Amino acid sequence: MAATMMGLVKATRGPGAELLEVPVPVCGPDEVLVRVKATSICGTDVHIYKWDAWAESAVVTPNVFGHEFAGIVEQVGEQVRHVRAGDHVSAEGHIVCGLCKACRTGNSHVCRHTKSFGISAPGCFADYAIVKGANVIPNPPEMPFELACLQDPLGNAVQTVLSGDIVGRSVAIIGMGPIGLMAVAVARACGAGRVIAVDINPYRLELAKTMGADDVINSAAIAMEAAVMDLTDGEGAEVVLEMSGHPDAIRSGFEVAAPAGRVSLLGIPTKEVSLDLSRHIIFKGLRIEGITGRRMYQTWYQLKGLLDRHRIDLSPLITHRFALRDYEEAFDLMARGMCGKIVFLHDANESTTTTKERLTYV
Amino acid sequence: MAATMMGLVKATRGPGAELLEVPVPVCGPDEVLVRVKATSICGTDVHIYKWDAWAESAVVTPNVFGHEFAGIVEQVGEQVRHVRAGDHVSAEGHIVCGLCKACRTGNSHVCRHTKSFGISAPGCFADYAIVKGANVIPNPPEMPFELACLQDPLGNAVQTVLSGDIVGRSVAIIGMGPIGLMAVAVARACGAGRVIAVDINPYRLELAKTMGADDVINSAAIAMEAAVMDLTDGEGAEVVLEMSGHPDAIRSGFEVAAPAGRVSLLGIPTKEVSLDLSRHIIFKGLRIEGITGRRMYQTWYQLKGLLDRHRIDLSPLITHRFALRDYEEAFDLMARGMCGKIVFLHDANESTTTTKERLTYV
Amino acid sequence: MAATMMGLVKATRGPGAELLEVPVPVCGPDEVLVRVKATSICGTDVHIYKWDAWAESAVVTPNVFGHEFAGIVEQVGEQVRHVRAGDHVSAEGHIVCGLCKACRTGNSHVCRHTKSFGISAPGCFADYAIVKGANVIPNPPEMPFELACLQDPLGNAVQTVLSGDIVGRSVAIIGMGPIGLMAVAVARACGAGRVIAVDINPYRLELAKTMGADDVINSAAIAMEAAVMDLTDGEGAEVVLEMSGHPDAIRSGFEVAAPAGRVSLLGIPTKEVSLDLSRHIIFKGLRIEGITGRRMYQTWYQLKGLLDRHRIDLSPLITHRFALRDYEEAFDLMARGMCGKIVFLHDANESTTTTKERLTYV
Amino acid sequence: MAATMMGLVKATRGPGAELLEVPVPVCGPDEVLVRVKATSICGTDVHIYKWDAWAESAVVTPNVFGHEFAGIVEQVGEQVRHVRAGDHVSAEGHIVCGLCKACRTGNSHVCRHTKSFGISAPGCFADYAIVKGANVIPNPPEMPFELACLQDPLGNAVQTVLSGDIVGRSVAIIGMGPIGLMAVAVARACGAGRVIAVDINPYRLELAKTMGADDVINSAAIAMEAAVMDLTDGEGAEVVLEMSGHPDAIRSGFEVAAPAGRVSLLGIPTKEVSLDLSRHIIFKGLRIEGITGRRMYQTWYQLKGLLDRHRIDLSPLITHRFALRDYEEAFDLMARGMCGKIVFLHDANESTTTTKERLTYV
Repeated sequence: MAATMMGLVKATRGPGAELLEVPVPVCGPDEVLVRVKATSICGTDVHIYKWDAWAESAVVTPNVFGHEFAGIVEQVGEQVRHVRAGDHVSAEGHIVCGLCKACRTGNSHVCRHTKSFGISAPGCFADYAIVKGANVIPNPPEMPFELACLQDPLGNAVQTVLSGDIVGRSVAIIGMGPIGLMAVAVARACGAGRVIAVDINPYRLELAKTMGADDVINSAAIAMEAAVMDLTDGEGAEVVLEMSGHPDAIRSGFEVAAPAGRVSLLGIPTKEVSLDLSRHIIFKGLRIEGITGRRMYQTWYQLKGLLDRHRIDLSPLITHRFALRDYEEAFDLMARGMCGKIVFLHDANESTTTTKERLTYV
Repeated sequence: MAATMMGLVKATRGPGAELLEVPVPVCGPDEVLVRVKATSICGTDVHIYKWDAWAESAVVTPNVFGHEFAGIVEQVGEQVRHVRAGDHVSAEGHIVCGLCKACRTGNSHVCRHTKSFGISAPGCFADYAIVKGANVIPNPPEMPFELACLQDPLGNAVQTVLSGDIVGRSVAIIGMGPIGLMAVAVARACGAGRVIAVDINPYRLELAKTMGADDVINSAAIAMEAAVMDLTDGEGAEVVLEMSGHPDAIRSGFEVAAPAGRVSLLGIPTKEVSLDLSRHIIFKGLRIEGITGRRMYQTWYQLKGLLDRHRIDLSPLITHRFALRDYEEAFDLMARGMCGKIVFLHDANESTTTTKERLTYV
Repeated sequence: MAATMMGLVKATRGPGAELLEVPVPVCGPDEVLVRVKATSICGTDVHIYKWDAWAESAVVTPNVFGHEFAGIVEQVGEQVRHVRAGDHVSAEGHIVCGLCKACRTGNSHVCRHTKSFGISAPGCFADYAIVKGANVIPNPPEMPFELACLQDPLGNAVQTVLSGDIVGRSVAIIGMGPIGLMAVAVARACGAGRVIAVDINPYRLELAKTMGADDVINSAAIAMEAAVMDLTDGEGAEVVLEMSGHPDAIRSGFEVAAPAGRVSLLGIPTKEVSLDLSRHIIFKGLRIEGITGRRMYQTWYQLKGLLDRHRIDLSPLITHRFALRDYEEAFDLMARGMCGKIVFLHDANESTTTTKERLTYV
Repeated sequence: MAATMMGLVKATRGPGAELLEVPVPVCGPDEVLVRVKATSICGTDVHIYKWDAWAESAVVTPNVFGHEFAGIVEQVGEQVRHVRAGDHVSAEGHIVCGLCKACRTGNSHVCRHTKSFGISAPGCFADYAIVKGANVIPNPPEMPFELACLQDPLGNAVQTVLSGDIVGRSVAIIGMGPIGLMAVAVARACGAGRVIAVDINPYRLELAKTMGADDVINSAAIAMEAAVMDLTDGEGAEVVLEMSGHPDAIRSGFEVAAPAGRVSLLGIPTKEVSLDLSRHIIFKGLRIEGITGRRMYQTWYQLKGLLDRHRIDLSPLITHRFALRDYEEAFDLMARGMCGKIVFLHDANESTTTTKERLTYV
């Protein structure tokens, strides 16, 4: 193992990032060193790259960022016994205390002492990454790295879809970013009734169809609320999954939710949202679920069951592949939204070309 | 049975009400005629009495109003077999269709075809009342009428408290109106951990202590948010029951909710509320429950189990008793808030005097 | 409408049945008269046909039997407003009281006052059938009658699969009768992980593969317990659905259930089963669900969502179609088990020939 | 701290135990050394003391046994930061791996890699005990040690009572051993409807009344099944908590369970039990829960909330207190069943006398 490696570093507290030669991190006794094979860009990474108010408040610098990855175990600390060198792995990115009330009651996703891999701790946009042994997720050796690195955001989609009953229910999914697109596939795979995808981006709506949406609504072109009511025979959507974070879309989501329905909120609005709680929530007897992260680790087992048995196929979602050195082009494309999921292939021979060809795992 | 009776009638679409001689209602084949023995005033009745925008939109006139009651069956329709003349009864006030999707899936409390006893259908502030056979709730003969008539609002409290786990959890109950006060008793009876009552009315906070609150916070005098955080060792309340409908109180409720906690909304705000969904709900992984009415009829069985076995004692809540003819004084008192629950005793000999003496059922 | 019709009648309290000319039933005020288009044979019908101890205790004679059907509304009683002549319908077969505690708390499937369509009340193996208005289930006009009549047993499969979490979990389904085969399809459609089908009949195991089983185990040929443990990496099946009713199979089901898993029991053993409760249930922390009938009517909405959106395809399950007059051949075939689901097509022109061709609804 | 201590040691693989001078255990980096102040005798300890088949299969020798305790932290390992010397503590006795699927999905109570404090690892019937840092439960300093040591079995009672809905429901609790008696108190504190206690021991039934049972049934004197049906108006008990482990009692429990009810099994039968699954479970649509241990650590937080807020009072349950040196008398008394909970007070000045006086914590 080389003493140094290339890593995409957030070096200064402003826009941009730099590909630098940095030391290979040292593996502690309860840690695992992973040779990174594929990573993907999360919306969070775009916030870090562009540097906004959230990034200023949350991100440590200098730091290798990136948190969605798959790789091969290079070395394990002396206390780690459940994985070994050569295993294919990904990892949960929330590094939690394990001892607080939240952690002890199945709610470690809201542990107050959380450190975040790739945000407040070193991440994966590099040749090697360090993860806590407790956070390691083994992958089947036959699972392509570029699909395996998508499990982290897939977990968010799974947790959002499964935060209440879904079988046979009409579902409106608002916001066709990568997690919204994944939620379409997950809802379909888990027995949802009519799955309605909503966005303003025709490119993304086409992807939504590919992922299994029964209907797509371009809310820039037609009135979303009327369209959903129409598609649901005037009853409204029994499940609304809000993935956009846009205040108007959130309000529309509450508007179209059916009585006794559920609204799960994953998209993060950057300002306050005004709601008619009486009409939107109370008189309808709605349930609202705030979704942050994955259940540790129930969500991982759920998505493993879906992915390992090929109940969902994420490959159409990977629209672009880059070498890490082409990160500027990748982030630029991501910001423009003319993509599904963008993957960095960390091996030079795999990453010399940008490709849209589809690698089928199913 | 007399052909006419006295009834408190909302005769015109404006403030006030009139005690009038009206026909005794005729009992249909699937209905039950009840001799009313005790009724109580709901906040909704105050809205009808004062006549506000909600009343204008929802109330039928002319109509005998009032919906919280207990009485004795006088007559049953030919299709009704599960109760008989002489039975002591109350009734669920939501008259639902029974055939829509909501009704067929355990959600008849949000049936779109609901008619409401005492609001859009004739009610109980009268000598006699008509209820649907399916809606009748039998009462134990030994239960005092003045306690039995409180079961309707008690159901709202029960449904709010039990809309999620409660055992051992810290609970902040905001708004010590009658349902809030009942919720204090229910939370205690159902194994809640620390029960914190919040209001701005010292009279109501004293009642809250009587009903079993561990701590009371006068939010007019001290900062409610800091006080709740302090009482919960900085963790926040694991359960927040919002009974006030006041926008500021609602926001405070979200502020003090612990991560992975629950906020159940029963109080009805009259205007929109602006929320920081990201901080208040999403990052905390909160669950929100909109509460309207009682579960039909799971809630009734839950409250019956509590009440029949004397797990809760509602008698301290009845602070005033009136004859129906003294309705103006009763509504005036209710509007001033210097009361717990106000009961009308419909028999002259019981109702000649206003009394604060406590009738103990336990 | 003719004054008489042909009906398959259980005329005497012994084996067999007779196709007789009987009066067309009269439609009461809360009832619906249906022109029957397709029916299917339930295992229960075989018990009635052969006449065993259960039949002796439960079946009314003389009676038209059969309870799985689809048809077209011919006439509605004066109190029925939610369906009209010409509508395509099926119906829930449990005729419940609606007023007991079970009925009032979402458990009408165990109402003590239940009458059963086709068992203790007249059924559907006839030209016309009477159903309670409240029990009618509307079907989409484009749904083939022969698929629509399968919704009743499909509901049992849906309720069994969904009596606990299923997404991503390994599932062993024991007993590949028609409901077991449907459960395979439902589990797949609802996101189950590895779906393992167990039976001793190779014909049925082939059908299980067609319905979506990942693995099939012929427990007459190999040790089922070892095979399930092997397929689940020694962990056992997280969900066991017992559809056989065979004591040995039931014990094996408990044997292979994973710790913290679920066993749902639908198959009805005819004698007592001896269990090692400590090892089978307590030390493993298992949950057991006894399944009887469908949730009224949550299950129907779940299966409608699956069926209407083509999430499952039941057509491969229909292996044989008969005219009602060929009932003896049909019951004989059913008793031999060399079939999937057997359908009676009630229109002469459709039913003149036995066919195995597949009518695809998807 | 002394280099040796007195400990009650299971020295040989046969009946009895010996109070020996043994080395004070050494505190590892992730461990805590506790000065033991009070312990209590579990039924499991009696099995170890008497040495039966289960003990032969599960117990390590030589070993200090005992697992229910309260004490004061004497020393903490270098990795332990959440407790410090002087803290009052108890501990969860299941020492789990934390990394298997069960542990990672909230089911560590069935971790296959569990070691048990006082059974397969050194326990607490000694001056000092070693516990894993992760297993430590802080106690309020004002909680008497003799009550604090009861939290482990209280957790079993809490988990059994709360393994399904309880509010307002009729509950039959079968077997008034210490955990059954605690379950009576927990059910009452959590809002149960009628609480019916069943046992054959009049002494224990008297204790059941003290703990809050509404009715007690001596099943040696009267027919338990008829009595429960009578007390529940012929409906049966909506919740049955089986704490006896006796095959006949278990069968009776299923017999009296109401349709759509729940049976939670904690008592451990030593032989197989024959059940009429069709009648007992399937046709009634029952749910069965196998209960083993506490939820780690949800149950602890639930019981803490109940205990810290004085919702339950366990002090009447402590009928006898001994010095550890009087262990033979204590185990003899326990075997005879003429006791509630027996506590060892480990400080000489507290333990010189056997006392039945009640220490009130409320």
